[in-house]
Order: sequence, then C-alpha cells, then structure tokens
Amino acid sequence: MTVKGMHTSPLKADTLNPKVLTAQYAVRGEIVIRAGEIQEELAVGEKKPFSNILYCNIGNPQQLGQLPVTFFRQVLALCDYPPLLESPRVGELFPPDVVERARRYLNAIPGGTGAYSDSRGAGILRQEVAKGIERRDGYPADPDLIYMSDGASQSVHAVMRALIRDERDAVLVPIPQYPLYSATLALYGGTLLPYYLKEEHEWGLDLQELHDQTEKAKAEGKTVRALVVINPGNPTGQVLTQENQKDILKFCRDEGVVLAADEVYQDNIYSPNKKFVSFKKVMREMGLEDVALASMHSISKGFYGECGRRGGYTEFVGFDKDVLAQLYKLASINLCSNVNGQICTALMMQPPKEGEPSYLLYSKERSELLASLKRRAERLHKALSELQGVTCNPLEGALYAMPRIHLPPGAIQAAKEAGKAPDFFYCKQLLEETGIVTVPGSGFKQEEGTYHFRTTILVQEKETDQVIDRLKKFHDGFMEKYGRK
Amino acid sequence: MTVKGMHTSPLKADTLNPKVLTAQYAVRGEIVIRAGEIQEELAVGEKKPFSNILYCNIGNPQQLGQLPVTFFRQVLALCDYPPLLESPRVGELFPPDVVERARRYLNAIPGGTGAYSDSRGAGILRQEVAKGIERRDGYPADPDLIYMSDGASQSVHAVMRALIRDERDAVLVPIPQYPLYSATLALYGGTLLPYYLKEEHEWGLDLQELHDQTEKAKAEGKTVRALVVINPGNPTGQVLTQENQKDILKFCRDEGVVLAADEVYQDNIYSPNKKFVSFKKVMREMGLEDVALASMHSISKGFYGECGRRGGYTEFVGFDKDVLAQLYKLASINLCSNVNGQICTALMMQPPKEGEPSYLLYSKERSELLASLKRRAERLHKALSELQGVTCNPLEGALYAMPRIHLPPGAIQAAKEAGKAPDFFYCKQLLEETGIVTVPGSGFKQEEGTYHFRTTILVQEKETDQVIDRLKKFHDGFMEKYGRK
Repeated sequence: MTVKGMHTSPLKADTLNPKVLTAQYAVRGEIVIRAGEIQEELAVGEKKPFSNILYCNIGNPQQLGQLPVTFFRQVLALCDYPPLLESPRVGELFPPDVVERARRYLNAIPGGTGAYSDSRGAGILRQEVAKGIERRDGYPADPDLIYMSDGASQSVHAVMRALIRDERDAVLVPIPQYPLYSATLALYGGTLLPYYLKEEHEWGLDLQELHDQTEKAKAEGKTVRALVVINPGNPTGQVLTQENQKDILKFCRDEGVVLAADEVYQDNIYSPNKKFVSFKKVMREMGLEDVALASMHSISKGFYGECGRRGGYTEFVGFDKDVLAQLYKLASINLCSNVNGQICTALMMQPPKEGEPSYLLYSKERSELLASLKRRAERLHKALSELQGVTCNPLEGALYAMPRIHLPPGAIQAAKEAGKAPDFFYCKQLLEETGIVTVPGSGFKQEEGTYHFRTTILVQEKETDQVIDRLKKFHDGFMEKYGRK
Repeated sequence: MTVKGMHTSPLKADTLNPKVLTAQYAVRGEIVIRAGEIQEELAVGEKKPFSNILYCNIGNPQQLGQLPVTFFRQVLALCDYPPLLESPRVGELFPPDVVERARRYLNAIPGGTGAYSDSRGAGILRQEVAKGIERRDGYPADPDLIYMSDGASQSVHAVMRALIRDERDAVLVPIPQYPLYSATLALYGGTLLPYYLKEEHEWGLDLQELHDQTEKAKAEGKTVRALVVINPGNPTGQVLTQENQKDILKFCRDEGVVLAADEVYQDNIYSPNKKFVSFKKVMREMGLEDVALASMHSISKGFYGECGRRGGYTEFVGFDKDVLAQLYKLASINLCSNVNGQICTALMMQPPKEGEPSYLLYSKERSELLASLKRRAERLHKALSELQGVTCNPLEGALYAMPRIHLPPGAIQAAKEAGKAPDFFYCKQLLEETGIVTVPGSGFKQEEGTYHFRTTILVQEKETDQVIDRLKKFHDGFMEKYGRK
C-alpha cells in the first residue's frame, strides 16, 4: 500500500537487507567510533590523562608516520602527471629508472591512469605481477589468471560472492579470524565454519580440526565451499610450516574445496626460523593439479603499507575457465580497479633490481623498515609477556599481537553487569584511560571463556616505550582493581 | 560427500551463485571481447578492411585521447610524491595554487594518499565536496552525509545491497537503462521493475508509467524500494525538465520509495534550451523533507573523464540516521575508497576559482572540451539521422547516442537463424567490417520489437568524419543486403 502523508525518512533501518544488519566489522566498530569522539574532545581542550589517540586497531602504517617507498611514489607521480616527463628538470628530480618505468607503463596503458583498464587490470601490469610471482616461487604465472582489485578486501568479496549460494554453503574460517571473513559471509548469506587455531601450540593449524568441522557440517547437510587460510596469520601472527601447508592442500584436494589463501603479510616475517612460502609454490612442488587456489596479495601491508591506495590482486590457480569467465564478468560490472593502485601493485611485485639507479635507496628503505618492524614486534612481545596475567605467543609475522588476558573474576563480573564482553570492557577502559585504540578478541571470535585483544606493532619506535608504559600502568591498575573483588 | 581422486578444478561454473550466473553487463560483453581478439589479429598483421579498433562502447574518454584536466593531475602528483613540495623547483613546475592545495590536503589527511581514511572519505575532502554542492544548488550540504566511493558504480552497489532483501523487493529502472542497474539487481536478488522512456517524446519520463508499474508490482505482492533516475540519461541522453523532476519527487514521497538519482552526467549538457538541475535542489525548492534521496556523482564523466581513477560520492538526503549508520558500516567493511580518487573528487567539486593562478588554464580546458563534445554530439546526431532507416533523438546531454535502427525483415530473419538478437547481429557485423565497437540496444533493454545501438560521442574530432564514413558505408551495405531479401 502507499504511505501517503508519512513524515521524514520513508526508509527505516529495520527494513534493510537483514544480511547487512547482521554483518559486523569490529576493526572499525564501537571502540574506534568512541576514539574519534575522544579526539574531538581533546581538540576542544578537554582534560584527559593523555594528549593523543594512538590507533593500534588497524594495520594502517602511514597514518602512524611510516614513510612510503620512494620509488613507488616517484613512478606514481609521473604516471599521474605525464608532462613532468617532458620537463627539462625531470632528470634532476627523478632517477632514470623511475622515468623509464613511468614511460614504459604509460606507453602500454591506453589513456594512462585516467582510463578504465581491462576489468582484470591493465595487461602490462598483470604481466609485471606475473613476473614477480615467478621470481618469488620459481614456477610460471599466467597474467590472464591474475585479477587486480581495489585491495585484497575486494578479492575476498568476489570469491565469496561467486561461491556462496545460500546458508547451506559453508566456508572454513580460522578462529581467531580477520573480521572481513565473518562480515562477507554474513553479507553473502553463507555459513561460517570455525576452525580453532591452537593458542597453546603458538596458534598452530590442526588438520584434525578441519576434518572434524567438515564432517560435522556435512552431517548438518552443509556443503563446504572453501577454506580460508591467513598466512602469516591475522590477528595471530603465526607462520605456517610447509608440512602444514602440504596437509592443507591435500585436505582441499580430497574435499574438493577452494583454498582462499590470504597471503597479504608475505613480506612481514620476523621469526629467524620461519620463512614465507606461497601455497602456489607448495602446490607446484607437490605436483598437485586438482586444487582450486585463490592466492590474494595487497599493497596495503608488507613494508610499503599503501593502504589508502587500494591495490591488490588474486592469482587463480587450478580454476575452471568457465568459472574464471564468471569472475571476469563480475569484475567487469565494477569496470576496473583504480589504475594508480594497479601501478603500485605492479611496482610492489617488480621493484628496482640490483644495479638499477633506485636499487640502493629502495633496498635501504626496505631493510630499515623491516628491521624496525622486527624490533617493534620483539619489544611489544616482551612487554606484553611481562604483564601480570597476560600470555602472548611469539610474533612470527604480520603486523599484530594477540595477547591473551587472564581476567580476574571481578572483571568478568563487572563486564557482565555493564552488559559488555569482558575483553571489550578491558579495551574500552584502556581507550578511556590511555588513548590506546585496540580491538577486543571478541571482534575476531575466540575460544569460549578466553579473552584477548589485538594491537598492531605499528607505533613508531620513538613512541613505543611511552605506549608500553601507558599500557602497563593501565593494566596493573585494572588487574588490581578487579582482582581485589 | 568427499570427492577423493577427482580431476582438475573441483569448482564448476554451474555450482556458482546463480545470482552471479544470471547477471549480465553488455557494455563489456561478447562484442567487446571479440573486439579484443580482432585487435590481436591486427597486431599479428591479419588483413582487415580497417586498421584500428574504435571503442565506442563505453564512456572512457581518455582511452580515446582526451587529455586530463591539468590542475587535477598537478595536485595529484604532489599528493602522491610530497617531496616535490620541498624541491627548489616546485615553483617552476607547479602554480602556487596547486602547491597550496596539495599542502592543505596533505596537512589535513593523516598519512596522505597512503593511509586508510575514514570509511566515508577523508573529512577535508568531504567538506570540499559539500562546499561544491552548496555552490551548485544554493542550499547547505553536510559533509557527514557525503559518502565517497570508488566511482558511482560502488555507490549503486551499496544502495542496492542495503535495500534489497529478496525478489519481492523491486526497483523501478528506466528502459533503456544503464546495465549496471540490471546487473546489481540480479546480484542482490531483487526485481527490476521497468518503466519505459518514451522514444517518440525524446525519451521523456512518463509519470503514468511509474504509477502503472508500481500498482502492477504491488498487485503481485512486491514492495517497491527505490526509483532509479538517470539524469542526464544514459544511454538515452535526455535532460529532465524541473516540472518532471518535481513530479518524480512527489511520486517518491507518496510511495515512500528511495530516489536513486544517477547524476554523473551533470556537466554534460549540449542542448541550448536545457540545463542540469539537481534533484537535491528541486527537493529543497519544493520544501520536501520526507523523501530519501541518494544523489550520485563521479569523476569519470563530465569534461574530466577520470574513469581509471575510480572516484565518486553519494549525498544522502532525508535518510534516517540508523540507515546511515548501516551504510557507514557497509563502507567500513571495505575500509575506504582510494584516497587519490577521493582527492580528485574533491578537486572536481572545488576547481580553481576566478582570479586564482590556475583558473585561466582550467576554464580554457573546460570550455574547449565541452564545446568539442557539443560539436561531436551534433555531428553524430546529424549523421545518424541521415542514415536510411535510422531515427535518432537529439543528444541533449551525457556522452552517447542511442539511434533506433528500423531493420528490414530480412535482417531480423537472418539474426533469428543465427540465434542472435537483431541489434546484436547488426553491431557484431559493424565490428567485423569497420572495427567500430558499439553496444546493442538489447544490452540496455528496449521496447519489444524495436532495435537500437549505443555509441559514445567520444571519438576525437579529427577522426569523426572517418568513423561516420565507415559507419555509413557499412549501414548502407547492411540495409541493402538484407533489405533485398
């Protein structure tokens, strides 16, 4: 019926798509919104026990002062404003390999950064990515199987959109997980099938758990469509062993499920006895042909941290060509990902080589930043481990720590009375008293009865001590206050 | 059950999400893919009656040689490579207002173009957009109601995702339509409720048609959630009168449906007796409060044509704050749109002002390009109208012509025998014989028994004659060949 004469806003939230209403994304949830309010309160001179907000909730390095890779930005500037290439000053302002790279890309991309590209990304840029994958793995990569995207989040959307038919379709997701997975599963109406990483075994992935969950799901009439593996782990920071990766691939082969490999932290390894090996490489070494692997990467993490540029790609390995055609069509409905981000993705996979003019600066920036991240990871791990009632697995990789807080019953009771999850209760007070923004473990899901929070390791080194002091002071006070009860 | 021992590709297309399988997007469909093959055939020296492919299928101006707006690209280059701001040469290479603008944006955006921004877009950039809207309409605009996106396509996705619950939710879409609407409706599982634009009245929007379709849908138990209006029209190029816009707003108010206003061609008006007026302005002038209007704009069209940059915004007018919170959450699941594109969107809405150093060049580029587009629109319209058996409404705005081809029975018969839609049959032969890429009217939907094709007006002026000759020669031959039968 018509609704003549109704007042403002015909549209009410409770009539929206229920899949949208149920989707959650804690990384930018209630605590972050409160942090924004506090920042405004500080701005208008409100007195607080701290002078600034420290955003440790999200892997956003440049927001915290990390500098971009010079080579990337030089090429991007020339590609966005090609007349600089004709300036007599260009040789003075840019190294020759930067100029050469920009010319080569612009000559091969009709319309440059201002024109829609092929929906999968400009051909020359997908070729650059393919060459980078070949160098990394020692196995061939086909540019036509590389689909560039506005960041890995878009890749995850595309895979979930294509795979999920209804709630009978299930996807195995590690717990703790990165909330993008629970959010997209909610949006596309699938079922999240949790497999718990073993905190007592340094967040190890237990194959038996995959089998148990899968059998359970089948018994409930569900179809397991995909297995999500995040390696290195987010929020948990563990790096898989190749043995573990082989078992995972065999599992996917035997069960006929797609392996969605989130490998965006592949350049973030800190443990001396761990290294990143791609699932593509392990699959090739095993000679496996009959696994469908979606390997996702991004320019947002690593040592480049180009989050705001929104660039990334998925390499589809072992996918049927009709399925790829459908994924191509999906991409074409969005026309293409941003070309500036596509170029940065190509640069990430095809950085300056030894002997090229930009190589020294590039490798200096790279090694200094990775060394600094390693120091920060170790320092934070040490500090967290020393806190009373806190245990923290080693930070082998990625950009986060996921300490477990053994909360006293008094804190759990007080949280219950406040109608909040205990770790939310902890993180909220941490924010109010210190200005440090973290994400409660409940936002990532966690073993029932355990409590965690996630913090990034991205605070600049000059501030790390200060942050650790703030955290320690708060934590001791919190434990004392609620421990007594 | 497990699928042990199966061979390559566990995943088959027929097991994908059926909503994905049914979605279509003709602008990048079969004909465009064939064009890519022909381009490769030409590249390896195959003989054809033409030497190059002319992409008239998609509004992608820079791919066809249109130059970007200098001011935009200068600011973007400085924002992507800030060390240029410190160079002693900066004053020699960039006008002072470009330098000032880049500094102002970078100072206000923590982490610059490399950091995630607020999910709706960086605050200062949303403020710039709001100021631009106020200048355009003469009514206030609130930056917090402006959500920036990776192009208007993303805005359409967000609105459809939020509104569509299931196939009982219907959206009124103009026919002929831009296929993004049918594609997103298919992806989100809603019902497309067609309202036919009246070709005999220069593609006019007939309110009676809206009412009839709505009553019909209600009788079938459907809920009409939104009305899509594309103004200026794509693919049809008509510009709505304010009277028409008022009736449309009243209709939305009375029916309680969201007005999704696709206003991305607002700068593309060629008819001297038509001008663009935003729905926001008309709504304010009417003093309407109780309409939910989503006004969408983009940097991809107009005279800037920054398609590959992926930037745009939606201004939400009259939306409930709980609904806005849900849209904010949806945006946050994708983190943010690319900041380089956000900056370009701000520049589009806040170009150099009279008296500023860049103003003269900017306004010269703007007026020359718009004059050229107007000449091309008129020339193409004249040429199409002169073709035997072709009628074409005036091109009042946007970037396209949508001529009707009155195909001889022989052509329709031949198409049927080939198992193709008659206008597809025409466009496919046009491509094979001339290298001109167009989109069959069937890709946009059209009145039963009528046949059209869409071509952009974007071919550079120096080539227009040549293209028109190719088209005329083909068309006459086609009509003669099939007219005889």
